[in-house]
Amino acid sequence: MKADIISIGDELLIGQTVNTNASWIAKALDDAGVEVGKIITIGDDVKEIRKSVKKSFKKNDLVLVTGGLGPTHDDITKDVLCKLFDDRLVFDQQVYEDVCELLKKFGRTVSDLNKTQAMVPSKCRVIRNDRGTAPGMIFTAGGKILVSMPGVPFEMKNMVTSAVIPKVLEQNLTIKKMHRHIKTFGIAEADLSEKLKPVIEKLPSSVKMAFLPSPGHVKIRLSVRNRDLDLAVKLLSTEEKKVVDIIGSGVYGFDDDSLEVIAGKLLTENNLTVSTAESCTGGFLASRISSVPGASNYFKGSVIAYSNEVKQDLLKVSQDDLEQYGAVSDEVVCQMARGVRELLHTDYGLATSGIAGPEGGTEDKPVGTIWIALANASGVKSLKLRLGFNRALNISLTTDHVLNFLRKELTISLD
Amino acid sequence: MKADIISIGDELLIGQTVNTNASWIAKALDDAGVEVGKIITIGDDVKEIRKSVKKSFKKNDLVLVTGGLGPTHDDITKDVLCKLFDDRLVFDQQVYEDVCELLKKFGRTVSDLNKTQAMVPSKCRVIRNDRGTAPGMIFTAGGKILVSMPGVPFEMKNMVTSAVIPKVLEQNLTIKKMHRHIKTFGIAEADLSEKLKPVIEKLPSSVKMAFLPSPGHVKIRLSVRNRDLDLAVKLLSTEEKKVVDIIGSGVYGFDDDSLEVIAGKLLTENNLTVSTAESCTGGFLASRISSVPGASNYFKGSVIAYSNEVKQDLLKVSQDDLEQYGAVSDEVVCQMARGVRELLHTDYGLATSGIAGPEGGTEDKPVGTIWIALANASGVKSLKLRLGFNRALNISLTTDHVLNFLRKELTISLD
Repeated sequence: MKADIISIGDELLIGQTVNTNASWIAKALDDAGVEVGKIITIGDDVKEIRKSVKKSFKKNDLVLVTGGLGPTHDDITKDVLCKLFDDRLVFDQQVYEDVCELLKKFGRTVSDLNKTQAMVPSKCRVIRNDRGTAPGMIFTAGGKILVSMPGVPFEMKNMVTSAVIPKVLEQNLTIKKMHRHIKTFGIAEADLSEKLKPVIEKLPSSVKMAFLPSPGHVKIRLSVRNRDLDLAVKLLSTEEKKVVDIIGSGVYGFDDDSLEVIAGKLLTENNLTVSTAESCTGGFLASRISSVPGASNYFKGSVIAYSNEVKQDLLKVSQDDLEQYGAVSDEVVCQMARGVRELLHTDYGLATSGIAGPEGGTEDKPVGTIWIALANASGVKSLKLRLGFNRALNISLTTDHVLNFLRKELTISLD
Repeated sequence: MKADIISIGDELLIGQTVNTNASWIAKALDDAGVEVGKIITIGDDVKEIRKSVKKSFKKNDLVLVTGGLGPTHDDITKDVLCKLFDDRLVFDQQVYEDVCELLKKFGRTVSDLNKTQAMVPSKCRVIRNDRGTAPGMIFTAGGKILVSMPGVPFEMKNMVTSAVIPKVLEQNLTIKKMHRHIKTFGIAEADLSEKLKPVIEKLPSSVKMAFLPSPGHVKIRLSVRNRDLDLAVKLLSTEEKKVVDIIGSGVYGFDDDSLEVIAGKLLTENNLTVSTAESCTGGFLASRISSVPGASNYFKGSVIAYSNEVKQDLLKVSQDDLEQYGAVSDEVVCQMARGVRELLHTDYGLATSGIAGPEGGTEDKPVGTIWIALANASGVKSLKLRLGFNRALNISLTTDHVLNFLRKELTISLD
């Protein structure tokens, strides 16, 4: 089964909104064995919507459209689709009741604009929306499916999961595609590629390997297409093993694993707790750790010590060392890690201190100079990072390095 | 000047990577007065790349292509473009030296794969890359421009800013488009639309208004196209004033303003400081506040009190109240706000305590029950939120609510 995704909205073409919808839908379709050929992003323009929908519907078995279904004057998708399928709008009592109930829940009254949302094309199957006022619509013609959904992500996602994917799985009996993502941190793409040359050269023809780099990280994607599910699984796991054997501890996880999830698993399994003392990361490290459901089992808390006063008062960093070495130094970051570990009574204490930028750099310590540290019962270890791109990237990369530092420490010390 | 953006990469079609590149480029082009007609996302497929590039180049003055320029076997864009422009690859000494210097900087050696990156089409103008090993390429034919750049965001962004936009501005003398975004928090899209009906009905024909909703937020976009820049500015500011007069304090800012930037400005202007005590937001509030360059002028730090022990020990929350009312209660959140304000000696103390989910909800306090509080010298104010969608959204919406709480408080108390 082949599909196109069409995203509608002027806000996407002027870069005001990032098209996270298309990626999310693409992943959901890929998981259901549907091959996405193209993602097309167009504006709120009657002619362009009509042309793109028509063309994609001709070439594919499935077309998913998002956007342009709101209650305001700039939402035109419903009318275009109605004309395209030679249909007319009719009042849908069920949709009207859904809208009333939803608005009531939020203590709001039903406006005339909301009433127009209960008008739907007569031939379509409605997808009810319990999270917003615009219903979704499924049109079918010549064995093909066209789905129109609102552009608000959490309304759309619910519709895809509850109505679209079941419909697709019902019809889709073609070849399955499987992926396996091997996630690495701290190794350059070209280095990985060199090391994996022997594997790449002997890849079976049905298996593909790709490298997906982002700052600090490289994902290695293995893909296989096969009718025989067992064979596909076997092919993937054989190649995966070869890759992991070569790359070793540079691999931190697979597929949806993140550094914080992996570190959290290791802490949970070993009944260990952690706390953080953060200067340059300003709480981002704590928020990454606590973003994992169940983090309260191992994460006790943090001291965000943005000012030196807080570093001294709460984390017991020595005033002399702050004056002699500065806040961005090996001495201070180690005291921060030890300090928070003792203050919050945890097994591990993690600390960051650095110059995230854009201001605050000196010749001696340019923007991107960052110290990280990890303290446990046996002592404290530290690491100097030289980053230096921009503030947000420095904060996020520092956080990755600390989580990877903890992961490696837990893997070694528990071996 | 009209443009298409083409994003290449299998990872985009299986939803493994969100296409942030396309949005970023779209915004840069829009700012330069270029109209983006379409964003097309396709896979690492020779035929599809050739077809899409050819078609977009025929219909537009400018085509920007990202992706498929890396050193590994799955990167094929360069070859396709070379054939399309009837060209051949030649060795470029300058590019080779750039690659060597970059790898040296990171302490790496030059591999054979890296050497192939110095081979470029003879007719193109090279865009040097000081952040990665793949150079960009500008092809020109029949007064039209095609640019090919790597898919790694921070390499691509540098190329667009330093080479593509100057080239575009040199050629682009057409009608300018201007936007103004009015940002609101806590008002529903339909309510805004109703209130603004009188403005919408009398909009001048060259001005467009659109509503862009996301959870909690609605952005109102005003757009105008005009040759006369002064007139365009006047048209926009007239309509903007009408909107702001009607919506009032629901408007928190404009264009790139965020709640954290606005709150930061108000604190700076009035020489005030802030600290946070966070349970359910786990450091996300602190990281939003500290994400703003210069935040150290008003942000002193935080206590992330994920465990009750930390709430008692550091924030001086009463054990009796924790037992009687639970951590998610008006009593506890107010003590947290007061506690952190006193501990870190700041003018304002902000606190959050709630059930972010997916676990931990009860009949009495379901997932999404969240208390927020704000303490200052005159006392403490609190607010109960009823959210309840998913963990990440609950954490991010709570943070928005707290920042908006602080913004409103600062606006009122300083009036």
